[in-house]
Amino acid sequence: MQIREATAADWAAIWPFFHTIVAAGETYTYPRDMEEAAGRATWMLEPPGITFVAVDEGGRVLGSAKTGPNHMGGASHIAGASFMVDPRCGAKGVGRALGEHVLEWAKSEGYRAMQFNAVVETNTRAVALWKSLGFEIVATLTEGFRHPERGFVGLHIMYQRF
Amino acid sequence: MQIREATAADWAAIWPFFHTIVAAGETYTYPRDMEEAAGRATWMLEPPGITFVAVDEGGRVLGSAKTGPNHMGGASHIAGASFMVDPRCGAKGVGRALGEHVLEWAKSEGYRAMQFNAVVETNTRAVALWKSLGFEIVATLTEGFRHPERGFVGLHIMYQRF
Repeated sequence: MQIREATAADWAAIWPFFHTIVAAGETYTYPRDMEEAAGRATWMLEPPGITFVAVDEGGRVLGSAKTGPNHMGGASHIAGASFMVDPRCGAKGVGRALGEHVLEWAKSEGYRAMQFNAVVETNTRAVALWKSLGFEIVATLTEGFRHPERGFVGLHIMYQRF
Repeated sequence: MQIREATAADWAAIWPFFHTIVAAGETYTYPRDMEEAAGRATWMLEPPGITFVAVDEGGRVLGSAKTGPNHMGGASHIAGASFMVDPRCGAKGVGRALGEHVLEWAKSEGYRAMQFNAVVETNTRAVALWKSLGFEIVATLTEGFRHPERGFVGLHIMYQRF
C-alpha cells in the first residue's frame, strides 16, 4: 500500500465508496443524497487543504483522506481531517495508514493540533483507531447525530495536540 | 431595540463594526485581513441560514447575528450561531437580546440543539452571557486560539439542547 496526493483523475475511483458510505448515513454528517458534483467539491480540496489516496500495488484506490485547516484566523493552526475506506477493503490497515500519514503531513505543515468535529459514537472502530493514534474525546454532543437505525446517538469531538 | 431579519441593505451598517471586531483578532476565528466581499458572504446567509440585526428606535444597527445548521445530514438538527455587537453599543443588552432571539428562532425551526464551535476563553463576557442563556462549555481546545496579545489561549465549544 502506498499513500500519495490525490489527482483529479482519482475521483472516479473514490466516488463509488464515497457514495456508499454517505448514502448509508451511519458515519458521516453529509446529506445522504449528496450528488457527485457536491461530493467532489467537498472531498477534493484545493490548497491549503489536500486530499490523499491509499493505493495498492496495482494502483487500485483503497481509501482516501482529506485534511487542511479546521478553523480560520487565530485558530488556523488546528487541522481537521476526514477519512473514507472502501468497505470492500476494510480491516486491512488502510484507515490507520491514512491517519498516520495525515498526522505526519499536518505536523510537517506546521499545524499544532488536529480536531475531528463529528465522530459518530456508534462508529466504534473509528473511535478506537483515533484513540490509538493519540486523539482524545474532548466532548460528546448528546443526541448530536440521528443514526438511521439507532436513532439519536452521541457525536464525539476528538482532539490531539502535537 | 427591535430585532428583525437583515436585508442586503443592512450590510453597509454591519461592515464597519464587523471589520473592527475581525481586524482586532481577539474574539473571532476569521482572518484578520478579511475583505468586505468575503465578510458579506460569511455573514449575510442564504436559507436555511438567516441573519438578524438589532436596531434602535431610529433604525440604527446596534448588532447582528447569523444562525443556521452547524452540521449537515444526520447532525443538521444542531444549529450554530455567531454574534457581533457594535463596540460603541456594548453593555446595553444587545448581545443578550440577539442570543435570546436566535434561540427562539432555532427552536421554532425545529432544531434540537445549538453549538458554538469557537468561543475564545478570554472573551469572558461572551462566555458568561452564553452560560446565562443555557449553554455549557462541553470542551476547551487547549491552546486552540492564538490571541494577538495573550498568545495561545483555550477555545471553548459550547452546547445546549432544547
